[in-house]
Amino acid sequence: MKVSIIAFTDNGMEIAYKLSNSLSESNDVDFTRCGKGALSTWTEEHFSTNDALIFIGAIGIALRAIAPYIKTKTKDPAVVVVDELGQFSIPILSGHIGGANELALQIAEDLGSIPVITTATDINNVFAVDTWAKSQGLNILNPECIKLVSSKLLKGESVHVKSDYPIQGNLPKNVYLNDLEDSNAGYDVIITHKDLENERKNDTLLLVPQIITVGIGCRKDISFEAIESSILNILESENYHILAINALASIDKKANEKGILEFAKKYDLPFNTYSAEELNSLEGEFTKSEFVKSVVEVDNVCERSAIMESNGKLIRRKDTCDGAGVTVALAINDPNISWGK
Amino acid sequence: MKVSIIAFTDNGMEIAYKLSNSLSESNDVDFTRCGKGALSTWTEEHFSTNDALIFIGAIGIALRAIAPYIKTKTKDPAVVVVDELGQFSIPILSGHIGGANELALQIAEDLGSIPVITTATDINNVFAVDTWAKSQGLNILNPECIKLVSSKLLKGESVHVKSDYPIQGNLPKNVYLNDLEDSNAGYDVIITHKDLENERKNDTLLLVPQIITVGIGCRKDISFEAIESSILNILESENYHILAINALASIDKKANEKGILEFAKKYDLPFNTYSAEELNSLEGEFTKSEFVKSVVEVDNVCERSAIMESNGKLIRRKDTCDGAGVTVALAINDPNISWGK
Repeated sequence: MKVSIIAFTDNGMEIAYKLSNSLSESNDVDFTRCGKGALSTWTEEHFSTNDALIFIGAIGIALRAIAPYIKTKTKDPAVVVVDELGQFSIPILSGHIGGANELALQIAEDLGSIPVITTATDINNVFAVDTWAKSQGLNILNPECIKLVSSKLLKGESVHVKSDYPIQGNLPKNVYLNDLEDSNAGYDVIITHKDLENERKNDTLLLVPQIITVGIGCRKDISFEAIESSILNILESENYHILAINALASIDKKANEKGILEFAKKYDLPFNTYSAEELNSLEGEFTKSEFVKSVVEVDNVCERSAIMESNGKLIRRKDTCDGAGVTVALAINDPNISWGK
Repeated sequence: MKVSIIAFTDNGMEIAYKLSNSLSESNDVDFTRCGKGALSTWTEEHFSTNDALIFIGAIGIALRAIAPYIKTKTKDPAVVVVDELGQFSIPILSGHIGGANELALQIAEDLGSIPVITTATDINNVFAVDTWAKSQGLNILNPECIKLVSSKLLKGESVHVKSDYPIQGNLPKNVYLNDLEDSNAGYDVIITHKDLENERKNDTLLLVPQIITVGIGCRKDISFEAIESSILNILESENYHILAINALASIDKKANEKGILEFAKKYDLPFNTYSAEELNSLEGEFTKSEFVKSVVEVDNVCERSAIMESNGKLIRRKDTCDGAGVTVALAINDPNISWGK
């Protein structure tokens, strides 16, 4: 986690120094002393690039500094305030998804301060679906529905979860799994890599595991547009959500293929490539092409690289994308989800 | 103080109800339960019109709700968050000037919760110049300088205050009064009704007591522009700050004079009027006019009404404002300032 600390006084700097030592065991930490007029600049620079900001000082100062940059629960960094005597450690933004509650608890332990946790699910010891989703690597599609789930649990009502995958461990209190009729109706939470955005009810929380890997083959100097429309068309035809993609893969000869690199950047996905030798080492049934083999010495690029990257199984074999000069295959992994954090 | 409370859950509503009872002894209190999507509307409506907002819930929810409306330390309402178990009472905005720290302490006492005060001067038991200025009715002209004063005191350095008025009580630790050479140089804080905005150093905190009363006489249907330029010109010629004005006064025949009412509204000043009988009852030397007496049965309107309103002494006698149809006089009161709150 990239953590930046800012302090305003000598006392504050002592705390910043102590925290920097303890937190840097498992984080990338820097700390700074705020000069005259420098707070807004520092905040603007660090808010969008950091995972967490720690202000050693008054909550009001921190709040006024971050207010202009606040966007959304799923993107904003964790913000924790520690008073300059180190008496309190207070998560003020992104308590759950951003991890501010956890960070504040760790700081409180390091400094011997009181953690001031105010999120209702935590203080009532109730299952916090957003913290849980984050810990399980599930993308939250509609964060505005988190509060509907939390509200039911806080009132002692039942919450019904539908999952397309097994979930290990004991169910949290008042949470039920796949217990309704076999459709999506009536569920409060649905966990799936399918794209349900158009058919869902407005108050169903949708969680998407990143479990699909896209294998790509293509002509040299293929355009970004050809890559993008090919991949999106296939996802749409299978009704898979774009946020279910976890990586792109190809053969090493494509490592600098601009259209793929641009796609990877736009959708914030890793792009890994493998040598012909590695791809050939895979055993199994692949859609063979003598032409491809004559060019890159592998009988199939997209299927093999998808499997090589994911270590999963093919759910869509090679598609030539209507002759766009691109081939795409999709592989899937079983997600590893459990009720424990 | 106008206080509005919002809660999100059953637990929260119980706390809101309890708080509403205890706080309404000395405040105007209302409370509400937040419906779906109603938080931003509620916040927008209450932020600008209330002295204090209390959120019973998570800090993050309160912070995201108020962020778009935050303006400045001297205007924003106090905002206090109480978690929904009532464990903590946390001032998050306007701790000093807005009174959030004091409110949070009161709430903590009412609920038996822990007050989470994070402003450095409070937790270090150091003189807080902004809280003090507020308690003494002093307008803070340049709130960005508050932190320079607090910072010196937190470091154990001396702070030099120049005041044009006597200040009762014992000096706070490390605070010195009128101890430098007889100019404004070197002072960290200057308390005066003089307009020093152009000659001050950038890092001198300027505090202005509201002690000047403007008495006004005028022709019927006088324009707002004539009223405004007359008053501002006289203030400028005396080098008095507009924020030192505490009220406008005239004879009752002018109670509905539009130009004066518009001026009162623009500068947020009370406008009070007195009968001819009341004005005549004043003893003392006034600039007499037979013409005025023939019209309104008082020999002078502006001087008499200024004294009637302020019960102070004249510091600028009747000025005819270059024949603009307006007469203006200024009266002044001694401010009652003490170091104790």
